[in-house]
Amino acid sequence: MKISVAERNALYKVIYNRRDVRGEFLPDPVPDEVLQRILHAAHHAPSVGFMQPWDFIIVRDVDTRKRVRDGFAVANREAAEMFPEEKRERYRSFKLEGIVDAPLGICVTCDRKRTGDVVIGRTANPEMDLYSSVCAVQNLWLAARAENLGAGWVSIVHHDHMRGVLGIPDDIVPVAWLCVGYVSYFHETPELEQAGWLPRLELESLVHCEHWAGKRV
Amino acid sequence: MKISVAERNALYKVIYNRRDVRGEFLPDPVPDEVLQRILHAAHHAPSVGFMQPWDFIIVRDVDTRKRVRDGFAVANREAAEMFPEEKRERYRSFKLEGIVDAPLGICVTCDRKRTGDVVIGRTANPEMDLYSSVCAVQNLWLAARAENLGAGWVSIVHHDHMRGVLGIPDDIVPVAWLCVGYVSYFHETPELEQAGWLPRLELESLVHCEHWAGKRV
Repeated sequence: MKISVAERNALYKVIYNRRDVRGEFLPDPVPDEVLQRILHAAHHAPSVGFMQPWDFIIVRDVDTRKRVRDGFAVANREAAEMFPEEKRERYRSFKLEGIVDAPLGICVTCDRKRTGDVVIGRTANPEMDLYSSVCAVQNLWLAARAENLGAGWVSIVHHDHMRGVLGIPDDIVPVAWLCVGYVSYFHETPELEQAGWLPRLELESLVHCEHWAGKRV
Repeated sequence: MKISVAERNALYKVIYNRRDVRGEFLPDPVPDEVLQRILHAAHHAPSVGFMQPWDFIIVRDVDTRKRVRDGFAVANREAAEMFPEEKRERYRSFKLEGIVDAPLGICVTCDRKRTGDVVIGRTANPEMDLYSSVCAVQNLWLAARAENLGAGWVSIVHHDHMRGVLGIPDDIVPVAWLCVGYVSYFHETPELEQAGWLPRLELESLVHCEHWAGKRV
């Protein structure tokens, strides 16, 4: 199946316009057929040994989302304390989640035992199944953007809190909580770049020729 | 920036036609401008705290790629021994890498110390930086497919072997080796599905409503 230049450019448009959304969510509900399309896209991510280790917990209930946000509040207070004092106030000023603002939460998990103990491609690198669930997250995120939906990955919640709120068994690993919803606008560049927290690195400085020590190209 | 329905459908076409390619690589070189485009797409993946922890080692040299493949051979022999005896021959019959067949190898890594010890979003979940590099892999993989390039992720190599061959420092984590090149054709469905190794799961069985124990939707 050939991909045309117009189709290729569409992919790049989606990739370059995807943002980690926290603050611009609208309360408008996400139609079921749209949700189904982004979940299907996630389900067609690559997975090690074709194990498809992911599950998706769809959370619309606001009380449940408030309890997830309570876990964020705890982990975020702990996080602020880890920064050197001169950065702490700055850290606290950032809006880092839209768990209750967005109408939809999606928890993506990894079932490491889904297809037994021995999995093709997971033998030398046992983390590969977690990485498969991350690929599903990235597919879902791009699909959401292509549906003009914002998505934001909230990682400042402890696994045990997420397990407790959502009833996730101990042997299932929470990989991501995604806030999903329509937005008033998308930022043109990442917010932490805009805020001057960190600069966009030059790609040239990250590309090595033939060997780590090879000249950057 | 609005994404049109045609652009959205183009993303879905790329997602559904992406394959983990091992056996259909052609020796034709990958033009530099194409390589630059897929690296740029990778570099615009989401990253925790905007740390952009990835590096990309571009390997065209065939002797280097043969040494990477030597590491695959070792780890693959070990892997076969882990399967129950009745599956071992089947496992050995699969072609699981195209390291020397493809004209290009790309090693994607994660520099966990890139922006210091404390990273926004990595405090409760220290694996988030590795996940960012995986998002870069997935962006690269989709971009490659949109350029009508095949890509295959080889995970059956030990990190220490990869570090040794490519001179990767001890504190940098190898995340993926990708074989990249033009292909004679793309399989219509994943090869392990075609081989009857594992079936494609029903999405419905993986979607939970409000809670892990919630009815599957």
